[in-house]
Amino acid sequence: MDQLDLMRQLSTPGTTKIVLLVMDGLGGLPGPDGLTELEAARTPNLDKLAAEGISGLSYPISPGITPGSGPGHLGLFGYEPLAWNIGRGVLEALGIDFELGPDDLASRGNFCSVDPATGFITDRRAGRIATEVCVRLVEKLRQIRLPGVEAFVEPVKDYRFVLVLRGKQLADGLTETDPQVTGVPPLPVKATRPESEATAVLLNQWIAEARALLADEHPANSLNLRGLAKVPPIPLMPDTYKLRMAAIATYPMYRGIARLVGMDVLQGGDTIEDEVAVLRESWDAYDFFFFHVKKTDSNGEDGNFEGKKAVIEHVDELLPEIVALKPNVLMVTGDHSTPWSLKSHSWHELPVLLWGDHLRPDGVQQYGERAAMAGGLGHLRHVDLMPLMMAHAGRLVKYGA
Amino acid sequence: MDQLDLMRQLSTPGTTKIVLLVMDGLGGLPGPDGLTELEAARTPNLDKLAAEGISGLSYPISPGITPGSGPGHLGLFGYEPLAWNIGRGVLEALGIDFELGPDDLASRGNFCSVDPATGFITDRRAGRIATEVCVRLVEKLRQIRLPGVEAFVEPVKDYRFVLVLRGKQLADGLTETDPQVTGVPPLPVKATRPESEATAVLLNQWIAEARALLADEHPANSLNLRGLAKVPPIPLMPDTYKLRMAAIATYPMYRGIARLVGMDVLQGGDTIEDEVAVLRESWDAYDFFFFHVKKTDSNGEDGNFEGKKAVIEHVDELLPEIVALKPNVLMVTGDHSTPWSLKSHSWHELPVLLWGDHLRPDGVQQYGERAAMAGGLGHLRHVDLMPLMMAHAGRLVKYGA
Repeated sequence: MDQLDLMRQLSTPGTTKIVLLVMDGLGGLPGPDGLTELEAARTPNLDKLAAEGISGLSYPISPGITPGSGPGHLGLFGYEPLAWNIGRGVLEALGIDFELGPDDLASRGNFCSVDPATGFITDRRAGRIATEVCVRLVEKLRQIRLPGVEAFVEPVKDYRFVLVLRGKQLADGLTETDPQVTGVPPLPVKATRPESEATAVLLNQWIAEARALLADEHPANSLNLRGLAKVPPIPLMPDTYKLRMAAIATYPMYRGIARLVGMDVLQGGDTIEDEVAVLRESWDAYDFFFFHVKKTDSNGEDGNFEGKKAVIEHVDELLPEIVALKPNVLMVTGDHSTPWSLKSHSWHELPVLLWGDHLRPDGVQQYGERAAMAGGLGHLRHVDLMPLMMAHAGRLVKYGA
Repeated sequence: MDQLDLMRQLSTPGTTKIVLLVMDGLGGLPGPDGLTELEAARTPNLDKLAAEGISGLSYPISPGITPGSGPGHLGLFGYEPLAWNIGRGVLEALGIDFELGPDDLASRGNFCSVDPATGFITDRRAGRIATEVCVRLVEKLRQIRLPGVEAFVEPVKDYRFVLVLRGKQLADGLTETDPQVTGVPPLPVKATRPESEATAVLLNQWIAEARALLADEHPANSLNLRGLAKVPPIPLMPDTYKLRMAAIATYPMYRGIARLVGMDVLQGGDTIEDEVAVLRESWDAYDFFFFHVKKTDSNGEDGNFEGKKAVIEHVDELLPEIVALKPNVLMVTGDHSTPWSLKSHSWHELPVLLWGDHLRPDGVQQYGERAAMAGGLGHLRHVDLMPLMMAHAGRLVKYGA
């Protein structure tokens, strides 16, 4: 039996409350003093929870595999990341708060430069044009009409945009146009299965008209489409877990993923204080809160050891306000590691801290990667975490007689 | 998705280098002083790597399962050992450097003694006849001709030989003739699926002619065939991992397994010093080296605690020469345990030491079974090791957006 089926079978309504606090890209690697970002951070409140709770380490997918943001979060939400895949186009659309429906085919678009004589790509990012230029070019592309489908074009940032086609007949299973190298022409969109042939024809028509409209632009005289995908028919979390679920996140992509899995996305300000305020205001209305902190990851991506450490310390300062709400279960972890020294997502395990009811505490006295190595939870995978939170919240009945 | 498919999808070429140092049968059990062979060995260089690196324990297959040499190595190479099976006949043929092709059906052969009156087996190993006798008997069996197939008979050692039939029409899915007990007659070869019926007929014909030729011999007046198998259609490692891969091993079976999975098998002398010399000479030509040390296992099989300990100490002495080549990733482990006190392969976990780039060190200061229990890698399975080595070598891209 699939884990989601098992959860659907065993989950039971209740009055307990769960908070899943996710610091994006939390896991790190040793810095100048041999300590990770988290180990170097002053975190008396997290350490207190670690001493009272139980700790462990968790692989987002499995040993050695680095997840993107989609698979990292799907694992946290109990979806096997290798079985449930969210396409890049879908994530990009979610990332600009575009509300995707089941008839939508989303694609990431990149403006690029081609040699007008040969049509060969000379710069896959069109010299990283300014976002204002991107906005103007997107405006131009909005005039393209296709038979029987609606087309939405939205600017993202720099050379990036989103194309969404909406129509009941659209199918995914389509190749990208970006050959990933310069000196060759863009590729046509091809169908990888018979059902998507007609969609490929439509997309190639849109691309041809778009390139004609861009021909006199410089340097963005062409474009590529990547990650063409529909929203997967994913089971909704509130049905699976019988929880009233809310997401508190400041970045569009995480709000989008949460909406995709059926959470209510709560509105609030941009700071972590704002997020805590939203949590407090919404406390009575929900059973489960996905609380997302973004800037740990951003600082990791920038290679900013001190910046990442400061965000963790800031979360620690606000933690007592979350604990004061008296959740039955509080889990603190990350979706993936983003070590300052790699400046990118990585495969390393995440420290997991489980605090709340029915705990069997271990001897861990600190919240950190090395401390968690001796934790009572041992080594887990992210898909294991929802069942653990559910169990400690008294939300799962016995399996079998 | 299957792990090999995932690796094929995520692996990316690069310039980093990986060394997988396998001490065959490395894992042990406590000896006279309560220490295992590895723990009792003086290993300052391995201990230094353990202090700098991260340690753990790994099951070759899963808890409680003792692997043969085939499954032990397939796991190390990232093949799920329960999904990919190399038949005993194939391993035996590889073990004498017989180059098997896709049309070959290989079998291990055992000379045995039968009661001439009843045909019942009296000694399954024919009194462990000398290898010279085996060579002479094999010479006799080479005169047997079968319709439409080539037959190769090769001596191995004592009462053991190899039979290889070559022909496009041959199929595996065949039972053995050895009843595993004395006092009963040998069994006929039977087809376990319809496609192998014709092959069973051919084999029974060969066996009948062979027994006729042996009838006047003493004590080896009959024979049995075991482990009849073809080479499985296994994906090649260099394609899966995008690595230039080489094997350095002194024993034919390990060279054969490495050849089977697509590695180049490098030639050299018989000592571990010779193997290190081959590694040094070939350093620039490959990205991945499977470096196999045999005599840890041989001493374990002999119940020789001191002998096994001495081999480990010898490897430790040579280790700085390997480290001096500056691999990006060095992993030290074994294919399975061969504790001196069991004198056989066992199911016990192997200590794993991972050293190199992007490490999150643990507090382990020694390379040994007990020290590894507190290691930061926790408990793994052998199939997890290739993804970990690949990740630390920067050879895997992110999964999903």
